[in-house]
Order: sequence, then structure tokens, then C-alpha cells
Amino acid sequence: MPRLWNETIDAHRRAVRDATLDTAAALLAEHGLASVTMSKIAELTGIGRATLYKYFPDVDAILLAWHEREVGRHLDELTKVLERAGSDPSDRLRAVLTAYAIIHQRRARQHRHHGAELAAFLHRDEHTSLAHTRLHGLVRDAVEAAALAGGVRDDVSPDELALYCLHALAAAGFLPSTVAVERLVDVTFTGLRHSH
Amino acid sequence: MPRLWNETIDAHRRAVRDATLDTAAALLAEHGLASVTMSKIAELTGIGRATLYKYFPDVDAILLAWHEREVGRHLDELTKVLERAGSDPSDRLRAVLTAYAIIHQRRARQHRHHGAELAAFLHRDEHTSLAHTRLHGLVRDAVEAAALAGGVRDDVSPDELALYCLHALAAAGFLPSTVAVERLVDVTFTGLRHSH
Repeated sequence: MPRLWNETIDAHRRAVRDATLDTAAALLAEHGLASVTMSKIAELTGIGRATLYKYFPDVDAILLAWHEREVGRHLDELTKVLERAGSDPSDRLRAVLTAYAIIHQRRARQHRHHGAELAAFLHRDEHTSLAHTRLHGLVRDAVEAAALAGGVRDDVSPDELALYCLHALAAAGFLPSTVAVERLVDVTFTGLRHSH
Repeated sequence: MPRLWNETIDAHRRAVRDATLDTAAALLAEHGLASVTMSKIAELTGIGRATLYKYFPDVDAILLAWHEREVGRHLDELTKVLERAGSDPSDRLRAVLTAYAIIHQRRARQHRHHGAELAAFLHRDEHTSLAHTRLHGLVRDAVEAAALAGGVRDDVSPDELALYCLHALAAAGFLPSTVAVERLVDVTFTGLRHSH
């Protein structure tokens, strides 16, 4: 088949997939987990039920794919933050931690009505997903670079320090303002320094 | 009714309640969430089904009561740690944080097979439960005392610092050893210091 045709097919598949995930996310944010059903998604997107089932076996698969896409987008955001950040490893680490905390707070706000049930649903897979592993890796690398430059303690492994950062910054979801999030980042960042 | 009789009734009620929660916890740890059913608990405890339903309307109520009892026990443990700790507010805070992290690691180990689904189930209520509020209060008070004595930064509220501590120390659930947990406590505690 000509290359152009394959590209058209690919674009179509991506469009169907994106429309499905967008619709699931909108239902979730507005009416909660129970409102996300295969029939409702088919109805709202105009994708036939039979077609929808060819893409996703069930609602769980849609929600996990949506979450994976979300975390993937967060990763892209963090990667861009790193590209814009200067060359000082400590500044770069701090920029990544700040961006991560703000993403966490924004996500908590977007799902303020149904956040708990969503978290409950995702919790099973949160720490095993590929995107989460990449997120951990991105923070670990930033920690490692800062440690090599002397800005971060090097007597605790970058892996453990990244685990600490990701957990501590998750508190951002419970904070009311950007200023409070900046304080949290400051506290978390201070924890990475050498203790005296 | 004579007081002795009331006491007997109370003791009996507590025994039924404790046996129910213990059995639910054992089933949970060994076979997972789906294995915890009203009939299985009735069978294993020897409590009649009709009686069991007088105590708890459903499995969810049993699991939430069990979790509330667990967090209550953790609170008792932390209170005892504080009683044994010296008078220096920073030492007392550090002792509480260490004990909390160790409890978290122990809990993750106990539920290593079914931890994710249990966490998913409890997540909905984790941050709203009375026991959790008391836990937050205990850590906040220890932070506040240390801040007043100058051992902890006082430009961030004890409430926010306690939120940070509880989130950061939750990483203990993913750490392999007590030494790693001690490192995490050290890092978290360093975060509470004044940043320069």
C-alpha cells in the first residue's frame, strides 16, 4: 500500500484513540468514574460500539490508556522545563521539582470532585506503569547530576532521593495555593542537601 | 441492670468486633480483598451471619473499621514513642518520624501481596478518617514544638510541614531495608531545617 495511505490510516487510528480518551476524561471529571461506560463513550464520540471495542476491550483499558497519556504529557512538560532550564544542575533539579509539584496540584484541582475514586482506581497501576518508571528516571537523573556537581548529598543513592522527592511533592495535591507549593518545593529541596 | 452485667455485655461486644476485624485482616493478607466476604468471616469466627450483620452492614464497613483500628494502634505506638523520647523537641520529632516511617514499611510488607488493591480501597477514605486527622495532628504538634525551640524552620506552618513529612515518609513503603528507612528519615528531617 502507498505510504500516504498508511499515514492516513495511522492518523485516523490516533484520532479515534484520542477522541475516546478525551471523552472518558471529560466524563470522569464531570460525573465520576461510574459515568464512564463503553456505550456513553460511543454515543458522545459518534464512534460505533463495535469499532470502540476493537480499540479497547473495556472501560478499565480506556482509563489506564488515558492515565498513561496524561503521565506521558507530564513527562513532555518536564522535559521541556529541563530544556529551558540553565546549565546549573541544582537549578535544573529545582526547576523539575517545581514543575512536578505544580502538575500534581493542577491534577488534584482538575479532579477535585472525583479525585479520591480516581486515585483509588489508578493506585493499583500507578507505580508499575511505564510512564511512572520514566518519570522516576527523569527525576533520578536530575538528582544524580546535581549530586555529581556537589549541590545534593551523595551519601544517599539518586534512586532513593528521587523516591523521596516524588512522595514529598505529592503533598502538593493537598495545598491551596501556588505559594504553598513553592514552600513545599523549598522544603523538599532542602532535604536533598547534606545534613550537618 | 447491674454494672457487672453491662461490663460483660461490653466485653462480649468488643470480642465479637475484634474477632471480626482480625479474621478480615487475616483473609485480606492471605488471599486478597475479594476473599473477604460476610459468609467467610461468619464461618471462620463462628459468629452467626445474622449476628454479624447486626455489627456491620457489609464488608466495606468491616474493612474501614479494621483500618481505623490499625491507624489507632499506630497512633498509640507513636504516643508511646513520644513518652519514651527525651525532652529535646528536635529529638522527639525525629523519634516520631522514624517510628512513623518504620510502621509504614512494616505495613507495606504485611500487605506485600495485596497492598496495591488494599491501598486502592482505603485511598478513598484515608485522608478523611478521624484517625488520620489525629495522626496529622500528632506530627504537627511535634513539628510545632521543634520549631518553637528553633530546631525546625518557622517560616512554613507546622501544618504544611506535617503534610510534607507524612507524604515523604510514605516512600518507606517502597524501601527494602531499615537502613534505607533511616536514610529517608534523615533526608526528610533535613528538609525541616532552615534553608540557606
